[in-house]
Parts: sequence; structure tokens; C-alpha cells
Amino acid sequence: MKKVYLDNAATTKTAPEVVEDMKPYFLEKYGNASCLHKWGQEARDAVETSRELIANKINALSEEIIFTSGGSEANNLAIKGVAYQLKEKGNHIVVSEFEHPAVLNTCRALEKKGFEITYVAVDKQGFVNLEQLKNSITNKTVLVSIMHANNEIGTIQNLEEIGKICNENDVLFHSDCVQSLGKVGVDVKKFNLSLATFSAHKIHGPKGIGVLYVKKGVKLCKQIDGGPQEFNQRAGTENVSGIIGFARAIDIITEEDVRIMRKMRDYLVEELLKIDGTSLNGSKENRLCNNVSVAFQNVEGESILLSLDDKGIAVSTSSACTSSKLESSHVLKAIGLKPEDSHGTIRFTLSKYTTKEELDYVIESVGEIVKNLRRISP
Amino acid sequence: MKKVYLDNAATTKTAPEVVEDMKPYFLEKYGNASCLHKWGQEARDAVETSRELIANKINALSEEIIFTSGGSEANNLAIKGVAYQLKEKGNHIVVSEFEHPAVLNTCRALEKKGFEITYVAVDKQGFVNLEQLKNSITNKTVLVSIMHANNEIGTIQNLEEIGKICNENDVLFHSDCVQSLGKVGVDVKKFNLSLATFSAHKIHGPKGIGVLYVKKGVKLCKQIDGGPQEFNQRAGTENVSGIIGFARAIDIITEEDVRIMRKMRDYLVEELLKIDGTSLNGSKENRLCNNVSVAFQNVEGESILLSLDDKGIAVSTSSACTSSKLESSHVLKAIGLKPEDSHGTIRFTLSKYTTKEELDYVIESVGEIVKNLRRISP
Repeated sequence: MKKVYLDNAATTKTAPEVVEDMKPYFLEKYGNASCLHKWGQEARDAVETSRELIANKINALSEEIIFTSGGSEANNLAIKGVAYQLKEKGNHIVVSEFEHPAVLNTCRALEKKGFEITYVAVDKQGFVNLEQLKNSITNKTVLVSIMHANNEIGTIQNLEEIGKICNENDVLFHSDCVQSLGKVGVDVKKFNLSLATFSAHKIHGPKGIGVLYVKKGVKLCKQIDGGPQEFNQRAGTENVSGIIGFARAIDIITEEDVRIMRKMRDYLVEELLKIDGTSLNGSKENRLCNNVSVAFQNVEGESILLSLDDKGIAVSTSSACTSSKLESSHVLKAIGLKPEDSHGTIRFTLSKYTTKEELDYVIESVGEIVKNLRRISP
Repeated sequence: MKKVYLDNAATTKTAPEVVEDMKPYFLEKYGNASCLHKWGQEARDAVETSRELIANKINALSEEIIFTSGGSEANNLAIKGVAYQLKEKGNHIVVSEFEHPAVLNTCRALEKKGFEITYVAVDKQGFVNLEQLKNSITNKTVLVSIMHANNEIGTIQNLEEIGKICNENDVLFHSDCVQSLGKVGVDVKKFNLSLATFSAHKIHGPKGIGVLYVKKGVKLCKQIDGGPQEFNQRAGTENVSGIIGFARAIDIITEEDVRIMRKMRDYLVEELLKIDGTSLNGSKENRLCNNVSVAFQNVEGESILLSLDDKGIAVSTSSACTSSKLESSHVLKAIGLKPEDSHGTIRFTLSKYTTKEELDYVIESVGEIVKNLRRISP
């Protein structure tokens, strides 16, 4: 059976060259980076070289890169870290209503502890309402957290503009850049970011390793206490092979990869929209190079997903972090999708390994499946 | 140059068969375990099979195993998780004074938030004072946390007895079992444990993956909010290859490994104590099979470490989580070591890969180095 993986927003294949780079750090250079002997120093050097490489890619300093276990931990550290650190200054945080669950549920946990959260609306294409954002900032606001690119519909926010608003109002600015890294340029200085979240496994790196960028001078309440690792901001033995893998994954991304993905995406969109009763969710212009989110009217997304799965094709109805719950997507609700369109939405997310042949197989399969499903239950 | 790695309490080589098992989960079976399609379900199956295997090894149920990013995160989740969950019931926690920094510094962070911590003393061999432990429990006590085996001196506590005390007093019992797993039998039921911490990279598994055992019915305040992963107790995309690696690492441990390490340990102790002005720290009988902690009088441990490093031998002065700070070990202070003995202490920790030839080289090297150092600064 053919196998086509189009769920690269959920996770990606670890690139073979990444695995090759990680291997010696399992088998030979396996020291604990906090140890003084040669094994330890060899690991330490590798960690610091990786840190510098990652820092350079986002225009940050090495000492502004904190390794975490992934995007969720980094989002928690950023938001709770600021909330508890600055709670004497203010207890108000502003986020968009369609953030990733790692941001939204962190905010809900903070609400239970007495913090106040404003959930700013987004428009039909998924752009944050900047007027509302501006107006929601009060003298009690300590943090604004807006994701760079949405994980379900791929809309890319204008972070530069949001960064300006935060700067003018003197509040810290965090962005969940998990989906945008390697696909859209992330420049922490240009965007005026105080904090930014990244994850390796979305860019052909390993699972279990992430980064929180923390601007020099920004203080966080530590979330994992223990040893003095990561500039005393995050305890725990450094995940050396994971760190090596993250650095290699970010290093091998090319502009050509992005260009090809964009072309493939446009081809997939064009062909899928030829099917009757379909529409593209999100923005056409400011969209991740690998995201195709299509609403198929009068069909259950779940049924399309399972039928595609039978044909060896992997897609999602919404994000992996919510998909087991079978709830309607909060993202699609936020952009004002009618329940029937929301329920019929499928997310196809491409990678640099995706081929045109694969897409042709997907296009053909989707066409058949949607037709069949509509015939069964009109 | 010869290379001898005797710092296996800090971290271990990932076993080649563990790396082999992990590999397909990077390159082929790379799905997100929360996704509904075949890639996702393949990852899910692997995660659940691993969970069951690990559960069986410690006499727990599958649903009592929560995967974390490592021991530090698991210790934080256990202690803060209980503290915040039960804060209406009581604000008092009892620990030993020579716990790992991931426990001690978590307790110190909680003290700043209004919790009360009792630090129970240990005796010269490193055994917790059970009378003091018993007497320190009040009607405000919600948790007792005592490590199974100490990371610096290798003393193994009688967890069964401590478990009984906790049971009689109706308080939850947590143990940091990071050092004991695979070396001493861990039976969560026999020990009456409510919570227990484990880490893969101390048993020839990968770094960046740990486990918190959470007894059925014990509720924790979630520390990483987000998706519903890990029975809604810990958000974040499952580190599938890490989980596979942890399971394989625990599965390949044999009693024979432990028996041989113990024999090697005894040989190393015997030979090192032939050097003048030496003494063994910790207990002779209830000691980890791979731990040799020796105080060399009138020498700086740091100097021994660096000289050994020059000969390709890796050892520690204290734990990796404190070694960069150059502070005197809180563990050695707790067992009442005089500063001069504490400063001259070296920890040698063996693995199943350690050979007698390697030990002979170490014994010869240590003898020379100590003699030389004493001659230089008498």
C-alpha cells in the first residue's frame, strides 16, 4: 500500500542526517554536560555549539536560549514564569483566543490562581484584532502572548506590528513560534520578542526537545527546580543528543525547501478546491508554506480522515493535542466557521519530503472519498 | 590514551541495543502518538507497550506510569503536584536533609510560597533517622519524600519501613528512585509508595526521559498544562523514541549485571582502602552495587579528579547537579564528614560495562596521584 504522510504540523520524520549526528552522543560522547571531566566537557562543548547555532538562526544571543523538553514546557515556563515573577506588578495577561492548548490551558490554570486573562478575537482569516489587542492592555498587563503561525489553519501573524504595540505599552511579548520556525523568518529583535517558544520535532528534529528564548534581562519564576542547568532557569540533566538533533535540524533547512513546499501547497489547494462544496480556511497570502486546511461541506472530517487512513494517507481534523478529544476545534470556531464547515475540515500539512506524485494520489483519493461519503449520507 | 568511565551515577552510555530500538521511531514510525491515523496509532501502541513493561518492572499498573522529561521534572511534579493539590489539607512536607537538589530546591521554592518543610537528619552511614521522621509528621503533613539510594554515597534506605510509617500516619510517600532503579528491586506496593521518580539515562537509556509513578487515586496539581497527554497529568507530545529507549533499557538489566558490579565494587573498595589515609563513605552493607565513595585525607578531590582526567579516567567529586558550583557537598556534610574528608572525596560509579582491567588501571593511577599530590602539598 502507498503511504503518504501529510500530518507534518503534528510531528515530522526525524531527518536521517539528524539521527546520524545524534548517534555518537548516545554511544560514545555520552557524558553529562555538567561534569568536569573530558566526557562532560565534550558534551558541554556540543551543547554550547548547538545553543549558539540556534541563537544565530533567530538573531538571539547564546545565553538567551533555554533548552526545555519541548514546546508545551517552554510555553508553560514563559507564561507561568512571567506571571509569578511579576505578580506584584500586575496580574493581567493578553492572548489570542486561538492559541495552542499549551498556552490556553496554562492561562486557564492561571485564572484559577487569581490571574486575569483577556482572550483577543481573530478575524475570518485568523488575524488577531490589533485594535482590541491594543485596547486590552492595562497598567496591570504583564504579558502579551500571540502565536506566530496557527497550527490548524496556518495563518501567520504580523509579529512586528504586535511587537511594536507591546513595546509602546511596555509589556513583555511572548510568541509560540513552534509552527513557524524554519518556514517563516523568526527574528526576535525585529519582532521585539521577550520570549519565544520553539520545538525540534516540527522541523525534522527529535521529539522531547524544545527551546525557550528568554531575552537578556527578562526574569522568570523557575518552573523545574533542582540543579543549576540552563543558566539556572531550568533544572535537569541536559538532553545532549536531543540538543544536537535540534541544532542539526535547524541547520539543514534551506530556502529552497520552503519555496518547493509553497509550490506544492498551492498545487494541493488548487486541486482540492476543484471538488464541489469546498473552501480554504485561513489566509491565502500570509499562510505557512506547508499548511492546507480545507472545509468539505456536508461531510464529517473524521470520516474523511479514516477513509484516507485506509488508503495509507495521514491527515488531521484538528491539532494532535486536541484530536483525541473529538471536540469541535476552538480555532475554527474562533475564525467564525459554521459548525458544518468546521466538522468537515481536514488539515493537510506537507514537508520537504512530500512529492508531487504523493499529492496526486491524495487529490484523487480525497475526491473519491468525499463523493462516496456524500452519496452515503446526503 | 586509555579511557575509563567511572561516572555512571551522573549518566551512562546508552546501550547499543537501546539505540537500535529507538532508531525506527525517528526514521519510520515517527507519528505523533495522539493522532488517529496509522502513524499515530503505531506510535501509541509502542508507547503503551513500553508503559506496561515499565509498570511491570516496579509492580505498578500501566495507568500509574506518567512519562516526564526526566528525574528532575518528575520530582518537581510529585512534590509541587501534591503540595498544591492538598494545600487545603495541610502545608507540611517531610524530606531527608541529603535529598537530590531536584527535591531539596523544590522544597526551598515551596518554603518561599508558605509551605513548611522538615529536613530529617541522616546518620554517619547515610540512613534516615526513623524516630525523627516519625516524630516530624503532624496533622498538617501531606507528603514524605525520601530517596531510595543516595546519589553520592550510595546508601540504600529501608523504604519498606518508611512506607509503613507513612501508611500508619496516613500521609503520601514519594521516593526518588533514580539511582536505585535496576540496581535494587523497586516494588511500589511493598514500599507503600504513592509516588516514585525514575530516569532512563542512569540505566543505559537515553537522556531526556523519565517516569513518575503515581498511585491510582493520587491526584496531582498539573505542572505542565496543555494537551491531554499522559492521562491529563503532563502535557506535551510524547517523546516516543525516548519512551521506547527507557523500556528497552529497563528490560535488558539482569541480576547477573548487578552481581558482577557488586563484585567489582568490592574489589575497587578493597584496593583503594589500601592507600594510606582513606576511608569509605556511606554504608558497607546497604550500598548501591556500583557506588564507591572514598575520602582521601589531605588531598583536594578536585585535584584528584583533574589528574585522573588527564589519565582518561572520569570520576566525580560530588553529583553532576552540583559539581559546577564548587561548593562543599551537602550530602557529605549531612553524614557528618569533616570538611577535610569531604574535600578529599571522590565518587567512582561503575556500570555493567566496567572491566577488571579498567579498575586495575584506575587503582594504580589513583595510588600514584594521591602520593604525588600529598608530596606537593603535605
